[in-house]
Amino acid sequence: MSKQKIVKAGIIGGAGYTGGELLRILINHPSVEIAFIHSNSNAGNYIHEVHTDLFGETELKFTGEYNYNIDVLFLCVGHGDARKFLDANPFPASVKIIDLSQDFRHTEKSTIDYPGTDNSARQFVYGLPELNRETIKTAANIANPGCFATCLQLGLLPLAAKGILKSEVHITATTGSTGAGQSLAPTSHFTWRNDNLSVYKAFDHQHLKEIKQSLTQLQSGFDQEVNFIPYRGDFTRGIIASMYLNSDLTEEEAVKLYTEYYAGHPFTHVTTRNIDLKQIVNTNKCFIQVQKKGNKLFIISIMDNLLKGASGQAVQNMNLIFGLDETAGLRLKAVAF
Amino acid sequence: MSKQKIVKAGIIGGAGYTGGELLRILINHPSVEIAFIHSNSNAGNYIHEVHTDLFGETELKFTGEYNYNIDVLFLCVGHGDARKFLDANPFPASVKIIDLSQDFRHTEKSTIDYPGTDNSARQFVYGLPELNRETIKTAANIANPGCFATCLQLGLLPLAAKGILKSEVHITATTGSTGAGQSLAPTSHFTWRNDNLSVYKAFDHQHLKEIKQSLTQLQSGFDQEVNFIPYRGDFTRGIIASMYLNSDLTEEEAVKLYTEYYAGHPFTHVTTRNIDLKQIVNTNKCFIQVQKKGNKLFIISIMDNLLKGASGQAVQNMNLIFGLDETAGLRLKAVAF
Amino acid sequence: MSKQKIVKAGIIGGAGYTGGELLRILINHPSVEIAFIHSNSNAGNYIHEVHTDLFGETELKFTGEYNYNIDVLFLCVGHGDARKFLDANPFPASVKIIDLSQDFRHTEKSTIDYPGTDNSARQFVYGLPELNRETIKTAANIANPGCFATCLQLGLLPLAAKGILKSEVHITATTGSTGAGQSLAPTSHFTWRNDNLSVYKAFDHQHLKEIKQSLTQLQSGFDQEVNFIPYRGDFTRGIIASMYLNSDLTEEEAVKLYTEYYAGHPFTHVTTRNIDLKQIVNTNKCFIQVQKKGNKLFIISIMDNLLKGASGQAVQNMNLIFGLDETAGLRLKAVAF
Amino acid sequence: MSKQKIVKAGIIGGAGYTGGELLRILINHPSVEIAFIHSNSNAGNYIHEVHTDLFGETELKFTGEYNYNIDVLFLCVGHGDARKFLDANPFPASVKIIDLSQDFRHTEKSTIDYPGTDNSARQFVYGLPELNRETIKTAANIANPGCFATCLQLGLLPLAAKGILKSEVHITATTGSTGAGQSLAPTSHFTWRNDNLSVYKAFDHQHLKEIKQSLTQLQSGFDQEVNFIPYRGDFTRGIIASMYLNSDLTEEEAVKLYTEYYAGHPFTHVTTRNIDLKQIVNTNKCFIQVQKKGNKLFIISIMDNLLKGASGQAVQNMNLIFGLDETAGLRLKAVAF
Repeated sequence: MSKQKIVKAGIIGGAGYTGGELLRILINHPSVEIAFIHSNSNAGNYIHEVHTDLFGETELKFTGEYNYNIDVLFLCVGHGDARKFLDANPFPASVKIIDLSQDFRHTEKSTIDYPGTDNSARQFVYGLPELNRETIKTAANIANPGCFATCLQLGLLPLAAKGILKSEVHITATTGSTGAGQSLAPTSHFTWRNDNLSVYKAFDHQHLKEIKQSLTQLQSGFDQEVNFIPYRGDFTRGIIASMYLNSDLTEEEAVKLYTEYYAGHPFTHVTTRNIDLKQIVNTNKCFIQVQKKGNKLFIISIMDNLLKGASGQAVQNMNLIFGLDETAGLRLKAVAF
Repeated sequence: MSKQKIVKAGIIGGAGYTGGELLRILINHPSVEIAFIHSNSNAGNYIHEVHTDLFGETELKFTGEYNYNIDVLFLCVGHGDARKFLDANPFPASVKIIDLSQDFRHTEKSTIDYPGTDNSARQFVYGLPELNRETIKTAANIANPGCFATCLQLGLLPLAAKGILKSEVHITATTGSTGAGQSLAPTSHFTWRNDNLSVYKAFDHQHLKEIKQSLTQLQSGFDQEVNFIPYRGDFTRGIIASMYLNSDLTEEEAVKLYTEYYAGHPFTHVTTRNIDLKQIVNTNKCFIQVQKKGNKLFIISIMDNLLKGASGQAVQNMNLIFGLDETAGLRLKAVAF
Repeated sequence: MSKQKIVKAGIIGGAGYTGGELLRILINHPSVEIAFIHSNSNAGNYIHEVHTDLFGETELKFTGEYNYNIDVLFLCVGHGDARKFLDANPFPASVKIIDLSQDFRHTEKSTIDYPGTDNSARQFVYGLPELNRETIKTAANIANPGCFATCLQLGLLPLAAKGILKSEVHITATTGSTGAGQSLAPTSHFTWRNDNLSVYKAFDHQHLKEIKQSLTQLQSGFDQEVNFIPYRGDFTRGIIASMYLNSDLTEEEAVKLYTEYYAGHPFTHVTTRNIDLKQIVNTNKCFIQVQKKGNKLFIISIMDNLLKGASGQAVQNMNLIFGLDETAGLRLKAVAF
Repeated sequence: MSKQKIVKAGIIGGAGYTGGELLRILINHPSVEIAFIHSNSNAGNYIHEVHTDLFGETELKFTGEYNYNIDVLFLCVGHGDARKFLDANPFPASVKIIDLSQDFRHTEKSTIDYPGTDNSARQFVYGLPELNRETIKTAANIANPGCFATCLQLGLLPLAAKGILKSEVHITATTGSTGAGQSLAPTSHFTWRNDNLSVYKAFDHQHLKEIKQSLTQLQSGFDQEVNFIPYRGDFTRGIIASMYLNSDLTEEEAVKLYTEYYAGHPFTHVTTRNIDLKQIVNTNKCFIQVQKKGNKLFIISIMDNLLKGASGQAVQNMNLIFGLDETAGLRLKAVAF
C-alpha cells in the first residue's frame, strides 16, 4: 500500500465508550479519514459535546445519516444491535465491517445472509491478531473479541498452540468500570463502587464461549474445564487476570514458549518481572508474566479493556486488513500513574 | 431523665442514605427503640436487604404504615416532601419532629399550620447545637441543617458571635458523592467521578441562605458577601471547607475565640495542627483549624456530610430534646484510613 | 462477671495501624480501662498526635514505660518483635497476653519458656473464636490470627469440621493497603497504588501455614493443596476472598452446613445474596456467601482486615477471656459507603 | 525547517516522574532522536525497568555518562540541582537547555555565568508559550514553568494583557499526587491519601512568585493580592483551579477576551461549558471555563500537571525552538475515564 492510501471510516454508535475510544485513536491516525460518526441520540451535536476531552481537537459532529462511500465501517453498538443493524442495512461488499459487539464472534453465528443480492453473505473472522493475523489480513469482516476474552486468551494461547492445555484452568480477573458501559446502574454508582470489589457471573461469564472456541481452534478436542471468576474493580480502565493450571513445563520452557509465540506481535509482551495493572492503561499493549510455582504454571495477563480489549484492537484489525503498519495510530502514551 | 427512659422513634424515608445512617446509629443507641421504618418502595423488605451492611445486626423490616405511638419522628425524605408529608399527616403534638430536609430551615418558612386542630401549628427550630443548643433542648420540632451549611457555619460562628465578620468571606468546599444521594446521575457514575473534581453551583449554592440566616442571628445586620465555590469530590464521605477573610485578630486571639466558643460542645474541636478530611470520616465530629496568614484569618473545617452534616446531627438534636447525654449513640469509631 | 468488672489493659506498640484500631475500640469499650499505651517512638506525645482522628476523644498519652498492674496486655508490634519483647519482659502469670503478631500462631512455636520462674511458660491459644471459642474462654494467652488467615478460614472451616475438604482448593483474595502497615514502600505509594491491582506471594503467602493448621485441627489428615493468589487492592480496608473446590453438597446442603456452623457466632453471617467488600468495612463482621456452580462449591468471604482480621478480633478474644459479652465494644457502625 | 531535520536530545535525571513523561513523549516524537538518558541511580538499567509501562516500546538504557553531541538537553532534576549541574557542566552554546526545575524561572536568577569561556553566560527565557511564544522561538535556554504556575497563569493572562487585573484574586487549586514526585512521604502513602483532601502552603506557595512576575510582565505595576489555597488531591494526575476577582467585564466580553487571547495557541481552549478535571488528563491541553457571577469574573482552569504543567510543555518549547510544528509529538490520546 502506498503511503498516500487513506482509509475512509464510518462509525455507527459513536457516542458510547468504545465509540469514543475509537474516535480518540482515529483522529490522530495517519492513514484514516473519518467519513461520518453516526449517533441516533446525538445527531447534530459536536463530538466534543459528548466526548468532552476532544474539545479543541476536532470540530466533527455526529450525524443521523450514513452512506456507503467508505472503506470500513465500525459498529460500536450494543450486543444484538449489530446484527439488527446489518440486517436492515446491507452495505456493499466493498465496505469492510469491524463489529465490536459479540454478535458474530461465535463460529455458528459468524455469518449474515443477504439472499438474492450481490453481497450474498458476510462471513466474520474472529479478530484476535495473536490468533488469526494472517486470516485477518484478507478478511472482509471482523468480529472484534470481547475484553475479558482477549485478556484470558492471550494468557493461554501459547499452551493451546502446543496442545498442552491438559488440566483444569483456574482464572480470576478484575475489570474496570468502563467494561460495563456508560449506562447508569447501581453497580456503577460511585458511592457504591469506590473502594469496593465484588464478584459477578462466576463460572458463567459469556466470554467463556469465545475463549473455548479459540483454544479448541489451536488444540483440537480441548475439553478441560475453564473456571473463571470475574470481579468488578474500583478503577475505570484495565483488566488483570491471574490464571494457573498443572503443567510439566519448567519456568524456562514456559517463558521460551510464550516469548516465541508472541515474537512478531507488536503489542503482546512476555516477562518474568512482576507486573501491575497500570503499566498498560491507555495503551494497546498486553503484558504477560509467566511463572512456575510448584507444579503450577502461573500466568498474569494485563491489558486495557477499552483498547486492546475493544477499540484499540479494532484499529489493529483495520490496520491489518488495509495493509497498514500494524501499530499505526496505536503507539499511545501510557497514563502510567 | 431517668436512665430507664427509652425514646420511641419512627422514621419516614428509611431507604435513602440519611435514613440508612440514622438506622446505623439508632440500632446501637442505648436509649432508643425503633418503632417503625417507613418506606413506600421497600415495605415488607428487611432493612438489611437495602442497607446490606446491617445484615446480622437487625431483623427489622420496612413498613408501609406508621402510627402516632412514638416520641419522635425523623423525616428522611426529599426536599419538598417533608412539608407535603406533614401537611397530609398531622401527627399529634406529643410527637417531636426532626426533619432532615431543607423544608423548614428558613425562618420565614419554619412553621406548618394545622388550623382548627389541637396542634394548631408546628414551629421548627434550626437544629445546629453549636448555635441553638438551649433552644433545641425545649424544641418541639427541628429543622436539621444542611451538610455544607453545617461545615461552613461551624467555621464562621465564633466570629459572628463577636460581631467581627466585617469583610467579604471566601469559601471553597468539596463534598463526597453521598452528598448527592443515591439516585443515579452522570455525575455520580463511577467512570466519570473516579479521580475527578468539578465545580458546581458556584456562588449560588442553596445552603448560602441558611448560612447567612445564622450569621445574622449572631451578628445583627450582617451584610458581607459570602463567596462559596462548591466542588464535587472523588470520595464518598466528608466535606472539607477552606475559608478566609480579612481580620484584625492575631492567630492567638482567633484560636482563643474559637476554642472558647466551642468549649462544652462535645463534637466540635479547634486546633492549630494541620487537618485532613479523613480524620473525621464516619464520626459526628467537626475539626476546625485556625490560622492567621498576613491579614487573613484562614479557617479549615472538616466533617462527615452524612453524620455531623445530617443523620448524626439529627440524633444529637434528639439527644438534646429528650435530655439524654448529647453524645449518646454518637461515640462512633472513625474509619481513619 | 458482674457489671462492675473493669478490665485493665496495656498496649505495646500503640502507634501502628493495629495499635490505633485497638485504641479506637477500647476507648469506647464499656468494660475496659486503658492503663498504658507504650510506644518507643512516641513516648510523651498525645495519642491524638499520631492517631489524629482521636482528637477530641481522649487526652491519653503514649508512655515509654509499662507496668504489670494490668489484666491484659496487647502486643501490637511487628512479627518477631513480640517474642523478643516477651523474652525480655516476663510479665506475671496474672496478666493475659493477646499477641497480634504471627510469633505464636504455629503450634510448634506457640510457647515461650521462663525456666526457673513461677510463670514457667506461656502457652498461646490460636485466637479464632469460630474455631476455638471454648478454649479461648479459659486461655491465658492468645495468638491472634492473621488477616488473610481469618478471612480464608472462615470460608472453609465448616467443610473441614465435616471432614469433607476432599479436593484441591482454589483461592484468590485481595487486601487493602492497611494490610501492609504504615511503613513507606513503593507499593504503598499513592501514585503507584491508586487504580492499580497486583499479585504478590502467589502460592507462597505465609498465612497458608496457619490456615492448614486449623483445617487439619478439624479434619484430621487434611492434605489437599490450597492454592492461594493474594492481590494488593487499591483501597485501604478490607479483604475479599473467593474460593472454590469440588463438592458433593448441594447448595442447599452447603448453606445449611455453614449456617449451622456459625449459629451462635455473633460476627460471622452466611448468606446466598451477592455480597461486596464494603458491606463489612469498619465492622468486626465477616459475611460468607455460599453458592453451588456445577460441581463446584463457591464461597466468597469478606471482612475488615484491621478489625475482624486484627484488632477487632483481639478485643473479641479479650471479651471471651474475661467473660464479657462477646460483642462488647464491637457493635461498630459500618462505613457502608 | 525541512522534514528531514531530527533533533538530538539528551536527558539528565531520566528516572523521575518528569523524566519518564518526557521519555513517553519523545519516544514517539517524529523529529526527535534520544541521544542519552542519564541517571546516576539507574545507569546500565533498561528504561523499562524503571518506567515499566515502556516495556515493549524501547530497549534504551540509562547511562552514567553524557556528551555534548546533542541539540537540546532536558534537565529533569530536583530544584537546586539544575543550577548545580550546569555550574559543573558548561555545555557548549550549541546545545539548547530546557530546565524543568524552578532554578531559572525568576528574572533575577535567570542567568548562569561561565566567565572566561566562549559561552560566557546562559540566559533563560520563561517557557510559557501562551506568554512568550515569540521569545521562546529564538531562545537558547528555557526555564520551564511550574505546574500550578502554568494552570493559574493561563486563567489570568488575558486579563493582565488588557491591564484589567484590578482587584484581589482568589484562587483554590487541587493537584494530583504526581505533583509531589516519587519520593515516599507520609502524605504520599496510599493509606493516608486515598479518599482524602488536605490543604498545604496556603497563601505561601512558591509558584506565586513566577505567577506575579508574569502578570507584571503583561500589566505593568500589577500589585493586587493573589490569594492561593493549594490542596493535595486523591488522584494522581491533573490540576483544577478555580479563581475569581471583581470585574467590570460582562461574561460575553470576558469570553471574547479569553478566546481572542488564546486564538492560535493550539493547546489552550476557552469554553463556557462546565469542565471537569479528567477531560485533560494525559494530554498537553488546558481548558479554561469563563463565567460571570454577579460582579465576579469566575475562571476554572484544568491541565495535566505532568504534561502541560511539566514535560509536555517542555516538548512544546522544544518544538518552538527548533521550528517544528508546535504540536509535534503532543497530540496525545486523553485517558478520558
